[in-house]
Amino acid sequence: MYYIGIDLGGTNIAVGVVDSEGRIIAKAETPTLAQRPYQDVIRDMALCTKRAIENAKISEDEVASIGIGIPGVAIDGVIVFCTNLGWHDIPMEAEFRKYIDKPVFMDNDATVAGWAEHQAGVSRGTNSSVFLTLGTGVGGGIVLNGKIWAGEHGAGSEIGHTVLVAGGDLCTCGKRGCTERYCSASAIIRMAKEACAKNPENAIMTAVNGDPEKINAKIVFDAAKAGDPVALDVFDKYAHYLALAVNNVISFFDPDMIILGGGVSRAGDFLLNGVKDRLPEYLFYPTLKQPELRLASLGNDAGIIGAALLGQ
Amino acid sequence: MYYIGIDLGGTNIAVGVVDSEGRIIAKAETPTLAQRPYQDVIRDMALCTKRAIENAKISEDEVASIGIGIPGVAIDGVIVFCTNLGWHDIPMEAEFRKYIDKPVFMDNDATVAGWAEHQAGVSRGTNSSVFLTLGTGVGGGIVLNGKIWAGEHGAGSEIGHTVLVAGGDLCTCGKRGCTERYCSASAIIRMAKEACAKNPENAIMTAVNGDPEKINAKIVFDAAKAGDPVALDVFDKYAHYLALAVNNVISFFDPDMIILGGGVSRAGDFLLNGVKDRLPEYLFYPTLKQPELRLASLGNDAGIIGAALLGQ
Repeated sequence: MYYIGIDLGGTNIAVGVVDSEGRIIAKAETPTLAQRPYQDVIRDMALCTKRAIENAKISEDEVASIGIGIPGVAIDGVIVFCTNLGWHDIPMEAEFRKYIDKPVFMDNDATVAGWAEHQAGVSRGTNSSVFLTLGTGVGGGIVLNGKIWAGEHGAGSEIGHTVLVAGGDLCTCGKRGCTERYCSASAIIRMAKEACAKNPENAIMTAVNGDPEKINAKIVFDAAKAGDPVALDVFDKYAHYLALAVNNVISFFDPDMIILGGGVSRAGDFLLNGVKDRLPEYLFYPTLKQPELRLASLGNDAGIIGAALLGQ
Repeated sequence: MYYIGIDLGGTNIAVGVVDSEGRIIAKAETPTLAQRPYQDVIRDMALCTKRAIENAKISEDEVASIGIGIPGVAIDGVIVFCTNLGWHDIPMEAEFRKYIDKPVFMDNDATVAGWAEHQAGVSRGTNSSVFLTLGTGVGGGIVLNGKIWAGEHGAGSEIGHTVLVAGGDLCTCGKRGCTERYCSASAIIRMAKEACAKNPENAIMTAVNGDPEKINAKIVFDAAKAGDPVALDVFDKYAHYLALAVNNVISFFDPDMIILGGGVSRAGDFLLNGVKDRLPEYLFYPTLKQPELRLASLGNDAGIIGAALLGQ
């Protein structure tokens, strides 16, 4: 049998047909156009799924289930929240089954990406893992005793909104000092802008032709890798906060593996080693065996693969 | 059958004989005298256990197992760390069985107290719970799918050493801004001393006859309950941080129930409501169903009961 994985984003809907080993055998995409009535978005999700099935040269009968990763919370087939689509209490499963009558499984997009890594990626074979997506925000995906843990009421694994710097930078959620404000790509950009305002003679400003609005995480990391002192200061600060966030995961949860994913993790070993170097100084039990700290292995496909494998 | 529970503290060793329902049917105590060789401490633990068994008017044959709650980490019958006793790699089980040859189970004292509440106290019947001991420090006890979760390497549920205020107050562990520095009885005392230094005309100072070294958490809470404005400010600050810590437990873990225990929790509903009032403002999903927030029900006996029931 095959499993459909749908990555429902604010801009694009990506659909994949996934085999039982977690391999994507065909894909299709369609724009989300989130301002439309939800019925239209869901119809396009279903039509895009039909195209992906065609591309895979299989029949709908060979599809076991539909899995959807959403930037929000779903309970019992209903999307309770999906903030960037402006959705509340959307009967996703009921609506989708009007087009393709298969069981629909849903979970948070970071949870789904962590599940993909557990089922088919870097944390395969572990008993427990915590996946951190370091992108525009910070998401978490928790696997525990081989199963997804998203909390008893769907509010768990929102690691980006655990407070790391009480009284600190204002978060989109209304609190101050959320982990997301210090460990996301947005945090790197903010820290770099602050550093460039104080000291504009640096490799970051050269790379953006003097326009700080063009700064992104990759530019900062590349300048740091090349040894620019201002960029290195920004990297040090970021790696410090990320190491504290990893410490928090260990002191709370102590899984077999902690995985860094999302756009920021493309900085690779430079980022990984930056965190690893700082961790021993922060850990409460530095001499105990530690969780392995690893980079995600599935990249953007994790969203499709993990969603698909929700139904396995 | 009966179960022995031992609460191994830095000052006292408390032993209880516990029935299968989690009721203590007899107790005995002995001083720890922690400076002695560990063999002497463990011999006294065993002799004290024999006295508790005598007090219970049962025979050793009716004892199924020995459980020990330790302020530290134990793995496979060995105490890896027990900081306030200055112990490292102590072969507790092997040494104890020289006197009473029964299986020995060990876990962290906060974990054990959380287990007691789950098996015989306020969180009985829940699937998952997080217990916070608010004492000199802050400890955590996690129960998940009806089982203790202390991490894959014994480093988990150290919620007191998750960072809440990065760059904040220096913790005994060497980090800055640990949750323990803002949510313990010690934190209340520190905040009260700071407030009294600025504004010495208040009910706290009256209660300690002008000697700030005599301030304790109860004095501060009693003054706040009586409406003293300086004490109320301290309470507000403390309840703010504790609500942030509870938010972190929810955003990370979202259990069925969060339990406030330890000495500070004796402030009762005044404390509970202080946290509950602030939570909605901090939560990422304020409209989702929330974990129940409750006070611990077993008091000091939780250490003995939970240790005993490790063997059940």
